[in-house]
Amino acid sequence: MRAHGRGPAALRPISLEPGFAKHAEGSCLVRFGDTHVLCTASVDGRVPPFLRDKGRGWVTAEYGMLPRATHTRGDREAARGKQSGRTQEIQRLIGRSLRAVIDLEKLGERQIKIDCDVLQADGGTRTASITGAYVALWLACDWLVRKGEIAAVPLTSEVAAVSCGIVGGRSLLDLDYVEDSGAEADANFVLTGTGGIVEIQGTAEAAPFTEGQFGELMDLAKQGIGRLVAMQRSVLGLY
Amino acid sequence: MRAHGRGPAALRPISLEPGFAKHAEGSCLVRFGDTHVLCTASVDGRVPPFLRDKGRGWVTAEYGMLPRATHTRGDREAARGKQSGRTQEIQRLIGRSLRAVIDLEKLGERQIKIDCDVLQADGGTRTASITGAYVALWLACDWLVRKGEIAAVPLTSEVAAVSCGIVGGRSLLDLDYVEDSGAEADANFVLTGTGGIVEIQGTAEAAPFTEGQFGELMDLAKQGIGRLVAMQRSVLGLY
Amino acid sequence: MRAHGRGPAALRPISLEPGFAKHAEGSCLVRFGDTHVLCTASVDGRVPPFLRDKGRGWVTAEYGMLPRATHTRGDREAARGKQSGRTQEIQRLIGRSLRAVIDLEKLGERQIKIDCDVLQADGGTRTASITGAYVALWLACDWLVRKGEIAAVPLTSEVAAVSCGIVGGRSLLDLDYVEDSGAEADANFVLTGTGGIVEIQGTAEAAPFTEGQFGELMDLAKQGIGRLVAMQRSVLGLY
Amino acid sequence: MRAHGRGPAALRPISLEPGFAKHAEGSCLVRFGDTHVLCTASVDGRVPPFLRDKGRGWVTAEYGMLPRATHTRGDREAARGKQSGRTQEIQRLIGRSLRAVIDLEKLGERQIKIDCDVLQADGGTRTASITGAYVALWLACDWLVRKGEIAAVPLTSEVAAVSCGIVGGRSLLDLDYVEDSGAEADANFVLTGTGGIVEIQGTAEAAPFTEGQFGELMDLAKQGIGRLVAMQRSVLGLY
Amino acid sequence: MRAHGRGPAALRPISLEPGFAKHAEGSCLVRFGDTHVLCTASVDGRVPPFLRDKGRGWVTAEYGMLPRATHTRGDREAARGKQSGRTQEIQRLIGRSLRAVIDLEKLGERQIKIDCDVLQADGGTRTASITGAYVALWLACDWLVRKGEIAAVPLTSEVAAVSCGIVGGRSLLDLDYVEDSGAEADANFVLTGTGGIVEIQGTAEAAPFTEGQFGELMDLAKQGIGRLVAMQRSVLGLY
Amino acid sequence: MRAHGRGPAALRPISLEPGFAKHAEGSCLVRFGDTHVLCTASVDGRVPPFLRDKGRGWVTAEYGMLPRATHTRGDREAARGKQSGRTQEIQRLIGRSLRAVIDLEKLGERQIKIDCDVLQADGGTRTASITGAYVALWLACDWLVRKGEIAAVPLTSEVAAVSCGIVGGRSLLDLDYVEDSGAEADANFVLTGTGGIVEIQGTAEAAPFTEGQFGELMDLAKQGIGRLVAMQRSVLGLY
Repeated sequence: MRAHGRGPAALRPISLEPGFAKHAEGSCLVRFGDTHVLCTASVDGRVPPFLRDKGRGWVTAEYGMLPRATHTRGDREAARGKQSGRTQEIQRLIGRSLRAVIDLEKLGERQIKIDCDVLQADGGTRTASITGAYVALWLACDWLVRKGEIAAVPLTSEVAAVSCGIVGGRSLLDLDYVEDSGAEADANFVLTGTGGIVEIQGTAEAAPFTEGQFGELMDLAKQGIGRLVAMQRSVLGLY
Repeated sequence: MRAHGRGPAALRPISLEPGFAKHAEGSCLVRFGDTHVLCTASVDGRVPPFLRDKGRGWVTAEYGMLPRATHTRGDREAARGKQSGRTQEIQRLIGRSLRAVIDLEKLGERQIKIDCDVLQADGGTRTASITGAYVALWLACDWLVRKGEIAAVPLTSEVAAVSCGIVGGRSLLDLDYVEDSGAEADANFVLTGTGGIVEIQGTAEAAPFTEGQFGELMDLAKQGIGRLVAMQRSVLGLY
Repeated sequence: MRAHGRGPAALRPISLEPGFAKHAEGSCLVRFGDTHVLCTASVDGRVPPFLRDKGRGWVTAEYGMLPRATHTRGDREAARGKQSGRTQEIQRLIGRSLRAVIDLEKLGERQIKIDCDVLQADGGTRTASITGAYVALWLACDWLVRKGEIAAVPLTSEVAAVSCGIVGGRSLLDLDYVEDSGAEADANFVLTGTGGIVEIQGTAEAAPFTEGQFGELMDLAKQGIGRLVAMQRSVLGLY
Repeated sequence: MRAHGRGPAALRPISLEPGFAKHAEGSCLVRFGDTHVLCTASVDGRVPPFLRDKGRGWVTAEYGMLPRATHTRGDREAARGKQSGRTQEIQRLIGRSLRAVIDLEKLGERQIKIDCDVLQADGGTRTASITGAYVALWLACDWLVRKGEIAAVPLTSEVAAVSCGIVGGRSLLDLDYVEDSGAEADANFVLTGTGGIVEIQGTAEAAPFTEGQFGELMDLAKQGIGRLVAMQRSVLGLY
Repeated sequence: MRAHGRGPAALRPISLEPGFAKHAEGSCLVRFGDTHVLCTASVDGRVPPFLRDKGRGWVTAEYGMLPRATHTRGDREAARGKQSGRTQEIQRLIGRSLRAVIDLEKLGERQIKIDCDVLQADGGTRTASITGAYVALWLACDWLVRKGEIAAVPLTSEVAAVSCGIVGGRSLLDLDYVEDSGAEADANFVLTGTGGIVEIQGTAEAAPFTEGQFGELMDLAKQGIGRLVAMQRSVLGLY
Repeated sequence: MRAHGRGPAALRPISLEPGFAKHAEGSCLVRFGDTHVLCTASVDGRVPPFLRDKGRGWVTAEYGMLPRATHTRGDREAARGKQSGRTQEIQRLIGRSLRAVIDLEKLGERQIKIDCDVLQADGGTRTASITGAYVALWLACDWLVRKGEIAAVPLTSEVAAVSCGIVGGRSLLDLDYVEDSGAEADANFVLTGTGGIVEIQGTAEAAPFTEGQFGELMDLAKQGIGRLVAMQRSVLGLY
């Protein structure tokens, strides 16, 4: 039995709280159970050097975790003076996932910087980050629309993410920390609102796994992401 | 007239929310108006090298600000690879302030690490941090008492902090960001529950100020800190 | 038509040259067409701190690229003072892939450090690295066997990797740099000699792709990796 | 009895040696007893980016200590690769103190960089630095006047600094290292030639102290700084 | 007797393999016995800031060693986050040596960046690097000539380098690692094709050595460099 | 004519001021004309890890320059976060030079750390540093003798250094900054009191130079160092 009586294909309790941060052009506090991530989207009038004068925009992301978001306190990356490989891997994933659903030409020559900061961690921080960041990004685009800077929100689809894994031989959706620690394999799926694949990352933690098992995980992910996308649409008032 | 109709000697709306963070031994979300700081206290069984085998404990603090806590997005210190001078100055202040009210021998050979992370900033982040960190520290000590590791909470007094400043020639308590930006002088006071001075930092932003003005600021601080300490006692159930 | 008349399911010319480096316990110069990577395996008597006195070993990997391995010279990471996110992502992937096929208990309390240094790059450096690193790792294990330190090579299977991608709507195996730059999607597969999945990473570069397309890529990968594993076995004299 | 028969309100032997450094536009070797600091002022034609094209100048300061300035050798900050929090705090204080007495518009669009390097330390290095830096700054301004670049020295007042502390229950002026190490409280005062407050920093080292004690320290500081300012005027030939 | 029956004035087997790297404008794999260094020359259209708009070019060099080039694995400098003093010393030497034989005005306002990466080390990596880098530099200049960007190769002479040392009281040419480790003194000579001195570095490893011994080392170096220059000319087709 | 009427073989006015620093076990302020370097020697009871429990000591050196020691202000290395290649090269040279004249076994298992900090620079800072550091080292050894920790000063000879160069075709001793900037070649010589060679570094700044010219420089160096050694002996009271 999973914690809180969840079945194998059940998500944890999810909430998306748009507008959580007072100053940001877009923001969302996302909760996947006890994993809480504050996502903000900041509009910046300048693009990175490699995009200057090309008429296109950019979306980039940074990720961080408060030192005591976890069971035992971790080092503060700012104090240690560098970001871990894990942090860099996650923030690159968030940025790629969001760029897959935005029309950078329609965004125009400006940059939107996404910050995903984990206030509390219980597994699945990268998938919660992507799911919440989409909401923050939509709101920042909408802010640009309302200011008259662009004609319409230049997002081509929703994007959301969820983890799945094989735990004790069973395929499970949306692993929490305890499940993730004991998983034989886990995979993160980033899919669009129409079921397109944006990113897949699957890793054997112990023995290699089979193509059949991988198919089960993908089926779970498609179900879970369908529900997450519905929630995104709902909190943004789009239906 | 100050924002929200505040008088010169009025604090902003204050809230202290103990136990905000699930994993930490002690935690408090402190709000001074729109300044919101998450303070956690983490118990660590090891002391720093200079204190090994001396039978005394230690309290240290780290401070950070989410990149979009402010009106315009700031650099992420972890990405830039170093903490700013301002960050280091603040975290040293928080640590000193807390160590002034704890009996390190009674704490025993263990360390309590305080993290103050600013989720949203509107002036006074260092004073809110100290005020909230005291609550987190008390709770972590109480956790040690309840585990039977120490006999009693080894805190000798409450400690709280507030900023004051001279704005447009008037002495004001608890400056918000707009007031702080336009202040002729500002000062941060860290006082104990019994009115003892732990730390005073006063700075002329424009022309030097007078001893009489400094006296006015200290009087405001004593009033404000009296009220903050009463709130600390109240949320901790100590009265 | 692909460069050099390759069909969609053809690998580039592959070579594996074991023992390329004089000093290392195991080494292999791997060539996937014009991508050349020198892989070495160094045996270290000490394990990382988190594994001390647990009777288990560890395998870790580092990855680098000579500044002029590429079409235009890149920064030297040692001169810039930090490794890029891409570098860290790749070296974490190599380490995980190798640890998936080694019995760390049978390796005993020692560490094998893999270095993959790209002498020349033309796409697919991470997959060539994994494929060559397996050979270097096997040789280092064999060196331990010949020295009498362990009873048998503690590898549970071969592991090899290849990239696939969708280019101009067609699914192709083993992309070179030009193909990779223009791909609509690409994916890296790390599979064992018996077809088990160790790692899958698929990314949409432009529009999201479909599950059907993903299936095509996986089929190509299984064919390609089958051939790579046969070459690994051959150069190691295992058949 | 204090070292060398000093009374509680006596400064250590003070000397200010203008022009100590051959190359700098302004310089002063300041000695507060055995604390020796070389202060230089370097004129730079460019201002920092945030001040470009605003017609105003800037004054900034850096602080350092030779590794063997102290009783036991400290790490060289350049070798360790970063400045300590203490160093950053002090150099920020020096910069703020000097900017409080300069008319940045009259200085014009140029920057004066102050370097305070402690050759030998015996307590009070930050207060000696401020006191000597004022002399170096004045000389650099005078150099600009003599070159015809500005009409007059744009300093609005002298500024000097001294530490005070409570040691063994007594309030003392200008603590040396031994006194500072044993102080119950210490405070640094930065005052102008006309007694205006530029900066106050008071810290309880052990138990909190009282407002009355703080008043005693401020009275001592006013006396001491009056004498330091007279010496500054004297060595600059201003009376 | 020296390894492989070498006499005191014999070089190790030397090879120079021009064009080893596919992408670089000039390249050479140089082997001094078991010391193998890949040298590349990259043409960059921009000069460093201090040379802008002066009509002159620049040549600079970077040096690195693969972690397992040596008998025991060394730290990867990119992972450690900084280059060692030894690395910096060597790359400065390579740059100076090459600049001594190039007419920077005839090169025009462009920069040639030399990378010397040690694939395998057995003593004398800096002298092999200089010798191979000259070939790579010549080829990059020739590439500019063939592209019509400059009229002729702007090199004023060949430059090559060799180490000599006193081992067991005997003066030896071109030390390998074992000889170098046991040398009483060693010296690196960088000479031109016409015998001019570009750089001399001599160091006593144990007791100081005499002027007479130094003379012997210089005589050996002149002989060795004469042979190296002949090989450079030969592989470049210049005779 | 050279500045101050110096002949080609004349040193600048030299002074050696032992005991300049109050806290260090040994110290010397050395002046070669307007080049002033403060050298300190600090005794440390621990040796570096590679020498633990071998019964031998170690001497190491660090070098720094105050930011405004030079004509125009340089970056502070501690602020920039790393030491330049030049700094590292010089401090390695100082350490090697001193280790060449000390019997590390007689020093016993302790380390002496030399700090050479340039207060004012006018050419020849590295040679002045070595010359002054020898005096500081001798004094620190003598301090150990006087404390009864070692039987005698374990130095086997004096060591001193001087630069020479070819300026306008003439060979000159002890170059100042202006001469050094215009030199066709320069060389630094580190010799013992008995004329043994410890280190030679010669560099062509423009065209290569000849063996005959190099011989002239060495002759000048031998004369100059003879005089420096006599001064070292004199200030140490050894004759």
